[in-house]
Amino acid sequence: MIDDLEIDSPLVRCFRVEAAVPSLEDNTADIDRLKLTLKDVLQQQGVVEYHLHIPFQLLAKLASVFRSAGFSGYVLVNMLPACGEIIDFLPHKPQALPAMALDLGTTYLEASVLDLLTGKKLAEGNIENRQIQFGSDILSRIHMTTSLKSSGPDEMNDGLQNLRESVTESINELAAQLADKAGIRTTEIRALSVSGNTTMVHLFLGLSPYHICREPYTPLINDPDPCHAYDLGLDIAAMAPVWVLPSIGSYFGGDLISGILACSLDILEDTCMLIDVGTNAEVVLGNRDWLIACAGAAGPALEGGVARMGMRAGPGAIEHVAIDTDKWTLSYTTIENTPAAGVCGSGLIDLIAQLYLARVIDFRGKFRKEIEPDSKEHKAFLEKRLCSENDEMFFVVALPVETVNGQPVILSQIDLDALIRSKAAMYAILTTLVSQVGVAFEEVGKIFVAGAFGKHIDPRQAITLGMLPDLPLSKYEPVGNSSLQGAELVVLSGSYRRRSKQISQKVTYVELNVNQEFMMRFSGSRLIPHTDSSLFPSVPVFQSSHNA
Amino acid sequence: MIDDLEIDSPLVRCFRVEAAVPSLEDNTADIDRLKLTLKDVLQQQGVVEYHLHIPFQLLAKLASVFRSAGFSGYVLVNMLPACGEIIDFLPHKPQALPAMALDLGTTYLEASVLDLLTGKKLAEGNIENRQIQFGSDILSRIHMTTSLKSSGPDEMNDGLQNLRESVTESINELAAQLADKAGIRTTEIRALSVSGNTTMVHLFLGLSPYHICREPYTPLINDPDPCHAYDLGLDIAAMAPVWVLPSIGSYFGGDLISGILACSLDILEDTCMLIDVGTNAEVVLGNRDWLIACAGAAGPALEGGVARMGMRAGPGAIEHVAIDTDKWTLSYTTIENTPAAGVCGSGLIDLIAQLYLARVIDFRGKFRKEIEPDSKEHKAFLEKRLCSENDEMFFVVALPVETVNGQPVILSQIDLDALIRSKAAMYAILTTLVSQVGVAFEEVGKIFVAGAFGKHIDPRQAITLGMLPDLPLSKYEPVGNSSLQGAELVVLSGSYRRRSKQISQKVTYVELNVNQEFMMRFSGSRLIPHTDSSLFPSVPVFQSSHNA
Repeated sequence: MIDDLEIDSPLVRCFRVEAAVPSLEDNTADIDRLKLTLKDVLQQQGVVEYHLHIPFQLLAKLASVFRSAGFSGYVLVNMLPACGEIIDFLPHKPQALPAMALDLGTTYLEASVLDLLTGKKLAEGNIENRQIQFGSDILSRIHMTTSLKSSGPDEMNDGLQNLRESVTESINELAAQLADKAGIRTTEIRALSVSGNTTMVHLFLGLSPYHICREPYTPLINDPDPCHAYDLGLDIAAMAPVWVLPSIGSYFGGDLISGILACSLDILEDTCMLIDVGTNAEVVLGNRDWLIACAGAAGPALEGGVARMGMRAGPGAIEHVAIDTDKWTLSYTTIENTPAAGVCGSGLIDLIAQLYLARVIDFRGKFRKEIEPDSKEHKAFLEKRLCSENDEMFFVVALPVETVNGQPVILSQIDLDALIRSKAAMYAILTTLVSQVGVAFEEVGKIFVAGAFGKHIDPRQAITLGMLPDLPLSKYEPVGNSSLQGAELVVLSGSYRRRSKQISQKVTYVELNVNQEFMMRFSGSRLIPHTDSSLFPSVPVFQSSHNA
Repeated sequence: MIDDLEIDSPLVRCFRVEAAVPSLEDNTADIDRLKLTLKDVLQQQGVVEYHLHIPFQLLAKLASVFRSAGFSGYVLVNMLPACGEIIDFLPHKPQALPAMALDLGTTYLEASVLDLLTGKKLAEGNIENRQIQFGSDILSRIHMTTSLKSSGPDEMNDGLQNLRESVTESINELAAQLADKAGIRTTEIRALSVSGNTTMVHLFLGLSPYHICREPYTPLINDPDPCHAYDLGLDIAAMAPVWVLPSIGSYFGGDLISGILACSLDILEDTCMLIDVGTNAEVVLGNRDWLIACAGAAGPALEGGVARMGMRAGPGAIEHVAIDTDKWTLSYTTIENTPAAGVCGSGLIDLIAQLYLARVIDFRGKFRKEIEPDSKEHKAFLEKRLCSENDEMFFVVALPVETVNGQPVILSQIDLDALIRSKAAMYAILTTLVSQVGVAFEEVGKIFVAGAFGKHIDPRQAITLGMLPDLPLSKYEPVGNSSLQGAELVVLSGSYRRRSKQISQKVTYVELNVNQEFMMRFSGSRLIPHTDSSLFPSVPVFQSSHNA
């Protein structure tokens, strides 16, 4: 996607300037000469009324290199909204102008290094967020920032300080890793764009997230001004602008604005939908005229960490499961085809949909206790895989001989219950949102599914579970890591930066925590596929918990 | 003058903001809330399309005080050209908003502290510029910055570093002294405006003045962006904006733009003239449509340091001299009426004009060797005051019994020669300037005379010497320390700040160092009053060096 993008005004730009050499007839001061020449160049490119600023600490250096280069060369400018910040002067054209785009995830940081001169991707990679040592989820991290004593209103307390430092270290490590891949020094990275949820952005900036999870859920900041890498202790170029995608509220972060940018929801004529499932399920519905959004806790069961055998979509994760009810065999695929280590979100959805269709679980999502086998194969299947221990039933997905550690990968009733709650929440969120604007699912043009979830999920299976609406499969479109894509778009393009601000003004956010309709819809969505099975005509209905 | 000034948009402003308290219906983030509310307030006051910025390091503190004040209070904003910088939030209205205006003189720093809320002057004072320890004049200081080794292009060399530190120390000491007088802490000074010549501004900012005195006389910077007090190591409020009046070139500094502002030369309909005599004589001619300026070395003899008994206009300086040629008595007045310590510029002009009229010196400015006394009193006068030693003649201005140190205050031929060169340069500058635009002196509406020189000078005596044109005395108007006045005006008023930039664009500068016409006029101006005595009808002419 990014490769095809036309670069319009990247966050840092390189301009060729050829100033006249000082003479008795033209003894304009060096710094003024540099600025006036650049102003002319900008004007020729249609950039007018744009204030140019040179940070005080760079004055002497810039004047010196400008003069020693004979008053001609290449000037680097941070293209900030209030002004263009002149940050370097190079005698020769740089080979590349590397910038880093970062998806600041709760669990993982994913990033790429792009060349702002060409839009080319120079490197990409990811790293675990070191904040995990202080708690795997957002709430435990927020708690940490408020449980330790603060020394004053404008001082960070130890908890906040630790969280900030650990994410800074992670970013620095990732930057070094990407710079190495790209064959550059870390300090050659001239810009950073950051897309993350509201809490992650607060922790990144060293700002207290205390009020984010307390009524009325007010962040400290939604739309931070760009700051510099040195303000944040980042090891990239000191004067690199750090551009953080704006948030809309406590539960609607810049990562979702990134998603809207990545699938162009804000400029499409058709009403479309974006679904991003991380720790929260975040959903946006809209078109070029309006955008409405909501978020709710739907994801934990789909991410690593909640289900006992759950894991993130990485090597060894079972991502797809199929049960052949003729031959009574179970087959699965793992990411990178390595021995099974667990089940990721998409595998879990497949597994439970298949267990429902194989009638191993009933429409309430419970293991059926008394199943009458239809065949020898069916009997063998059940004996091998549906077990119980201390009155607790469980299902063996991968046998010990197949796994990375010799332990079976199993699905317990507790895991099942969690997934059912998640799928119910997801469908309730989607229906609440469309009902707010009186749009029917059938009228929705496209449903973009973001994240690792979107990349691996089989919409057919999610429909069987009643998690996603029963629509033609062609309407579902995976968009990959749209948070990272958004960060890439804004670092490359001024029009995307403007759109990100416009989106943050335009989105109407529906607060589900206080929404009665949502709670009713959630209850109705707890069966497979749904209490009102007419909503899912393509899904077979088994109303009895006994054999058909 | 300043007391009557209407304050329009001082450099730092205080706005009352009353934001709504966050609720479920309005959970705008704290910082965004502060900004949006302020934006509304600004809009109501007609300030639109003005970007608001909060420096990164202040985010946490501002959010904290804003919230603990219940989202209402007073916000302080640095009103910079590119954006409004929010730098503090106060729960209660401040009693004053002190700002410092500074005339950054080569010899002395003069400053005042003004209240930006009322325009009231809270304190004023001056201090010697500690850079004097490194050389009393500009050239020796420039030399110092280039004679010591620099460690790199963006590093200050030791000479520059020493000069910068010593002026910073002087400013800090003066700020402390003024804060003490005003009954405030130094850190309560929220802004600083600086008016100085181009070299002084370079040294203040730690920028090399190397090229200022080398052809083609190119400063490193003429129009610096505002920086912050902490950038410069100043002890006033760290975030105080430091606003430096723009220069036009190496020999036309912000101090002269201040002068133009102080006498409103740039908005008057009549063509007027501003004369500022410091180390250089700087002259501007113009009106609201055009401004032309030049500068030249005319001053040294008029300031302390060149003439042996010369001194700055301070206590004990002989400022006026009169010789009664009937009774043959010499009378003088000193500043503050203390015993004589020397002669300041105005005293020197008086003295030499009086010596000319008393025919002690001839029209070439030489002591007359053979004077035939007219009377007993005349004889006694000459015997007492016109002496010679080793064939060198000198004139006793103050007798040993009258002086502060028991030494006579004398005028030597060397001092006389220097003064004649200065007066010739001054008149040549003035005539060259008016001839450039084809204006006759008679057409000039007012002649503003700035500085200590303007305050003390008697235009009648300067006309007698042929230093100033022979015009009605009512045309001459002293304007005092216009450099300081300009600094006061720009810290108090946005329209004066805009005008200072317009002036720097508008002035046509005539370079005298390479001007043939000037050299010819200089030669013609070396007699008293002038080679062409018809230019000075009010001055008696004694063409012979012998008695009349």
